[in-house]
Amino acid sequence: MRDQYYEQLDQIVDELVQLTGTVRRAVADATKALLEADGQVAEAVIDGDKVIDETTEVIEERALLLLATQQPVATDLRQLVATLRMVADLQRMGDLSVHVAKIARRRMPDVAVPELLAPTISSMAQVADQMIDSASRIVANRDVPAAFRLEEDDDEMDRLRKELFRLLLSDSWEHGIEPAVDLALLGRYYERIGDHAVSMARRVVYLVTGQLT
Amino acid sequence: MRDQYYEQLDQIVDELVQLTGTVRRAVADATKALLEADGQVAEAVIDGDKVIDETTEVIEERALLLLATQQPVATDLRQLVATLRMVADLQRMGDLSVHVAKIARRRMPDVAVPELLAPTISSMAQVADQMIDSASRIVANRDVPAAFRLEEDDDEMDRLRKELFRLLLSDSWEHGIEPAVDLALLGRYYERIGDHAVSMARRVVYLVTGQLT
Repeated sequence: MRDQYYEQLDQIVDELVQLTGTVRRAVADATKALLEADGQVAEAVIDGDKVIDETTEVIEERALLLLATQQPVATDLRQLVATLRMVADLQRMGDLSVHVAKIARRRMPDVAVPELLAPTISSMAQVADQMIDSASRIVANRDVPAAFRLEEDDDEMDRLRKELFRLLLSDSWEHGIEPAVDLALLGRYYERIGDHAVSMARRVVYLVTGQLT
Repeated sequence: MRDQYYEQLDQIVDELVQLTGTVRRAVADATKALLEADGQVAEAVIDGDKVIDETTEVIEERALLLLATQQPVATDLRQLVATLRMVADLQRMGDLSVHVAKIARRRMPDVAVPELLAPTISSMAQVADQMIDSASRIVANRDVPAAFRLEEDDDEMDRLRKELFRLLLSDSWEHGIEPAVDLALLGRYYERIGDHAVSMARRVVYLVTGQLT
């Protein structure tokens, strides 16, 4: 009975890790659509969000079924509740990649990001990618040291967001209001993607160590 | 045993409704700080978020304890899982009111919202307030008809966000980049507060009717 339970719990963790991979690709694709004004990739990200939503529901249902049928206590209970929270984080990261893709699509055939800001947005996307990768390894292997890397990445994300706003608000900004508004929102979206990765990692670290980071 | 269980479940719902009231006041105060450049109110919102976070944790712990000790199944299980999701929504709405208060504070002694946009922001805040009120009644009384009102409010929020962006991006905009960026982010924050109210309501409607709205 307990063996079967742990098998099912492992399966849920596997599915969570796989979904994290799907979300990581959605974010990377949204960035590609954004920086290259690639309409096909933008549409694929927007359409692909259905799959992320469906997978979220499947994992939720499995976790609820395990809660109901196995009635776990203590750490096992917390693990399942943490899983429910983490799928919510992943679903939201999927939504945010759709927001990025929609800004890309709205400005096509132009590129929504002026050249001046492409390196900053590209770096934010790269940091977000690393953060999702760390979150995935933390979930898969309960790799607590990876959580420290994640906090460093979060500091870097914060620095990049400040750089982005400094550039947007500098006197030399010559692109007008609409790109400034788009870029402010894009900065926010990448920052939130990073926040959700941090939130996932903290749930696992708390499960493993009992300590809030 | 079951009587005690339902008593504890009722208590959790009461606490959730109370927390919804606290969050509703935080959003209203943040709007007051924003539209009146009131520094004291802004600080109160920023400091007050600690209380929302602590209350969130208390409700979470109670729900987990009930899950572990009473091992509910079916609807009762879903009710507790829905509660965990709803406290996460409320915590996030608290964070968003802090973001509003921080924009207000950063621009003081000036008012962050130009006169031209004050009616739109004021309407967004009013719709958000109605939405949180509906969510609260839906949670307290399983008041499913209130969910329809909420969907109408959500359409109105969408209309106001479009109006906000139309004004920001119009040729007659004369306030420069920084207020435009602030206003775009403020629009986003109120919209997200509304989204979280919708998310709370949908969880209750699903519990009561078994139907996703």
